[in-house]
Amino acid sequence: MDYIQKSKEVLWLPFTQMKEYDLNPLVIESGQGIKIKDTEGNEYYDANSSVWLNPHGHRKQELNEALVKQLGKIAHSTMLGMANVPAVELAAKLVDLTPKGLDRVFYSDSGATAVEIALKMAFQYWLNIGVTIRKRFITMHNGYHGDTIGSISVGDIDIYHQIYQPLMFQSFVAPYPYTYRHQSGDPEETKKDCLEQLKKVLEEHHDEVCAVMVEPMMQGAGGMVNMPPGFLKGVRELCTQYNVLMIADEVAVGFGRTGKLFACMHESVVPDILTAGKMLTGGYLPVAITMVSEGIYQAFYDDYEKMKTLFHGHSYTGNQLGCAVALENLRLYEKERTVEGVAEKTPFMKKQLETLYELDHVGDVRQVGFMSGIELVKNKQTKEPYPWQERIGWKATLEMRKLGLMTRPIGDVIVFMPPLASTEEDIKQMVSRIKKGIYQVTKEVSIR
Amino acid sequence: MDYIQKSKEVLWLPFTQMKEYDLNPLVIESGQGIKIKDTEGNEYYDANSSVWLNPHGHRKQELNEALVKQLGKIAHSTMLGMANVPAVELAAKLVDLTPKGLDRVFYSDSGATAVEIALKMAFQYWLNIGVTIRKRFITMHNGYHGDTIGSISVGDIDIYHQIYQPLMFQSFVAPYPYTYRHQSGDPEETKKDCLEQLKKVLEEHHDEVCAVMVEPMMQGAGGMVNMPPGFLKGVRELCTQYNVLMIADEVAVGFGRTGKLFACMHESVVPDILTAGKMLTGGYLPVAITMVSEGIYQAFYDDYEKMKTLFHGHSYTGNQLGCAVALENLRLYEKERTVEGVAEKTPFMKKQLETLYELDHVGDVRQVGFMSGIELVKNKQTKEPYPWQERIGWKATLEMRKLGLMTRPIGDVIVFMPPLASTEEDIKQMVSRIKKGIYQVTKEVSIR
Ligand SMILES: Cc1ncc(COP(=O)(O)O)c(C=O)c1O
Ligand SMILES: Cc1ncc(COP(=O)(O)O)c(C=O)c1O
Repeated sequence: MDYIQKSKEVLWLPFTQMKEYDLNPLVIESGQGIKIKDTEGNEYYDANSSVWLNPHGHRKQELNEALVKQLGKIAHSTMLGMANVPAVELAAKLVDLTPKGLDRVFYSDSGATAVEIALKMAFQYWLNIGVTIRKRFITMHNGYHGDTIGSISVGDIDIYHQIYQPLMFQSFVAPYPYTYRHQSGDPEETKKDCLEQLKKVLEEHHDEVCAVMVEPMMQGAGGMVNMPPGFLKGVRELCTQYNVLMIADEVAVGFGRTGKLFACMHESVVPDILTAGKMLTGGYLPVAITMVSEGIYQAFYDDYEKMKTLFHGHSYTGNQLGCAVALENLRLYEKERTVEGVAEKTPFMKKQLETLYELDHVGDVRQVGFMSGIELVKNKQTKEPYPWQERIGWKATLEMRKLGLMTRPIGDVIVFMPPLASTEEDIKQMVSRIKKGIYQVTKEVSIR
Repeated sequence: MDYIQKSKEVLWLPFTQMKEYDLNPLVIESGQGIKIKDTEGNEYYDANSSVWLNPHGHRKQELNEALVKQLGKIAHSTMLGMANVPAVELAAKLVDLTPKGLDRVFYSDSGATAVEIALKMAFQYWLNIGVTIRKRFITMHNGYHGDTIGSISVGDIDIYHQIYQPLMFQSFVAPYPYTYRHQSGDPEETKKDCLEQLKKVLEEHHDEVCAVMVEPMMQGAGGMVNMPPGFLKGVRELCTQYNVLMIADEVAVGFGRTGKLFACMHESVVPDILTAGKMLTGGYLPVAITMVSEGIYQAFYDDYEKMKTLFHGHSYTGNQLGCAVALENLRLYEKERTVEGVAEKTPFMKKQLETLYELDHVGDVRQVGFMSGIELVKNKQTKEPYPWQERIGWKATLEMRKLGLMTRPIGDVIVFMPPLASTEEDIKQMVSRIKKGIYQVTKEVSIR
């Protein structure tokens, strides 16, 4: 089969303008360690961990073995009304590993569905305890929580969400502390300002609000924007003060990406509901989780006739293969000191990334652990962005492809999120390719 | 680990009142063929195919081998902006196998997300071709399309959906042809009546409607209700006549369940958008698909700057492991004549099921291929249902558990959806247990 040709004929790729794909088609065939290979024999550094998924690299022996072992028992049975062995083991492990106070695991298959479940739980929680007027959510400017209608209703990225307005429910939007583009340019000022504005929204609307939705420590799809220290804790305090639930969406930041196992741990914050997915299975299979406090769980626990049940589920909720590989993945985290490794290598990565400021069009470099974004600007002094139609980020990553490195931009922000197992040498190699790619494209643009 | 105890401590199961789970806990450990086994060593017939998923039985050698083979290459890489080998092969196969005219495959991980994608495609399709007033959907009474906010907005099962109204968008609801509970009791009359009412809704609202949503041939979660012959074709004709898209949700009925590979094929209907999932991977892994006509695809195909892209995707969209096992699953369908087998065994199953009418409280037995539902009623003459608080369906299936058979009711409807590979002897064994279970419980209730 001519895979490239066939891919153009039969596929509709996610988040992809297929007219652009047709100009730059690519079919992945295999992977090994932190590299992936296409059907034409080209190898690439997987510099965004296959879009934020892969901690240990591809074809990890222990993960493969865990799957083979589970195949010898059963691949999948339903969790509607019953459980299964790896799902129980994994849930027990997750209760141990997550911030104290998150005691229950509800499974699903994607970050978006984990968020949908969180929303329905938060919404129904209040009804179940007899509070009938809390029906709204507060989210953050430029937040991203997935693409289903519920998730986009608590999302706030205009180009993804705007046109679906007639299908969405309306959320309140509080500003997110984007230091580089805040009038102050100062983290402390930005934090104060944004917390004050969140407080205003809560002051005015708290009695109609179920929950506040937040991506802890760093917004991902919103452009890799880190929070100033203290902001997350401030959000937690406001949620407690105004008696609304706090939902921490750790789909992008969870499982060691930021240098702590969960991003909330940077500020010793315990949310009421936590969503995660992506790296949970070592980048192998779709499993996501929504974890809650015992208090929320108890609000749904009653005689059936009381109609407090959460009627939500998916065909493959609690999939045995997925749970088995997730369990082995978490064992590897311990055995290989994966999260500690990220924390230890973070200063080195920071140094490497700082060399990018040498380039004329690198405006801001943001990093939390192994999650980083490089914001390209037309004018470094004025911070003037490129016109979006220029597609400078997209062009830069196409250039990087030629240099043997794969990543995906968010607008004008180049994403660098290497597998957690990447060595310092790997990081150096990757950053040097990113630098060349940016230089090549921004130079070309400036001289034309 | 005491799995039963632990499961009560850490899990929150889908569609489950956990207070009931605590009284009847169960943890599955392994499976072989059409049976599953729990941690206490009890074996059960998997009489609903692990909630409608499993065609060939558990631990199927060929499927296991396909997964091991794929593990030797790569488990997963992203499909954002690129493709992968098994995803291309599977899509090509699906384009071949589905009704002619469905030419593109968009992957996701659950039936609910496949539906969300279908909704967003239908909605954006009209905008992309310059029609700005079509923003509503028509769905059928008692329809079920998953549990995310978009899916429940086109769903119509009150106990699942009602309380989330403030988060949902409003759809038009047309009646579904439920012959047993139609005033005529006659399939032809029921069909005519329901088509007329759908026509009325279209007549009045067609210019604000994007699409009609339908579960072809049989509603699943709505209670295993089959359509009278000709109804589906009638829906297609009305959609064409009023120029609205037709979305066929084959998540439950697809991949041979009804005795044809896709349920639409019973009436030679080609929808504009088709969703499927569940049995696609042989009941192994979460992969779902949204397939569309080339016309819809083309409406999104343009220069990036025109902003016609469908911005939708999930972390594990197009997962290699899932696509590889799906491919082998479809090869098995051919090799083992799976769908033909269902068609051949259907009359035998029908005969077996008809013996259930001997019971005093079996009101209606509905079947399309290997998809069947047995409706229990308090009074067979008047068709008076049991009070819902009686939980007669639930009690009957608990009784069946004791007899070594696992299934899950929908209200008072007992679901029987055996793996497609079940032999006639298997079917006989299963139906006899179902019969005993129903007898046991309905008898007890009548004498108290
Ligand atoms: C017709 C139909 N659509 C959609 C779904 C949702 O699929 P999932 O549970 O995989 O989200 C189901 C699930 O049973 C279904 O029967
Ligand atoms: C913070 C956050 N939430 C939710 C999601 C959605 O997850 P998925 O793509 O698995 O649906 C993402 C995906 O990138 C995310 O970054």
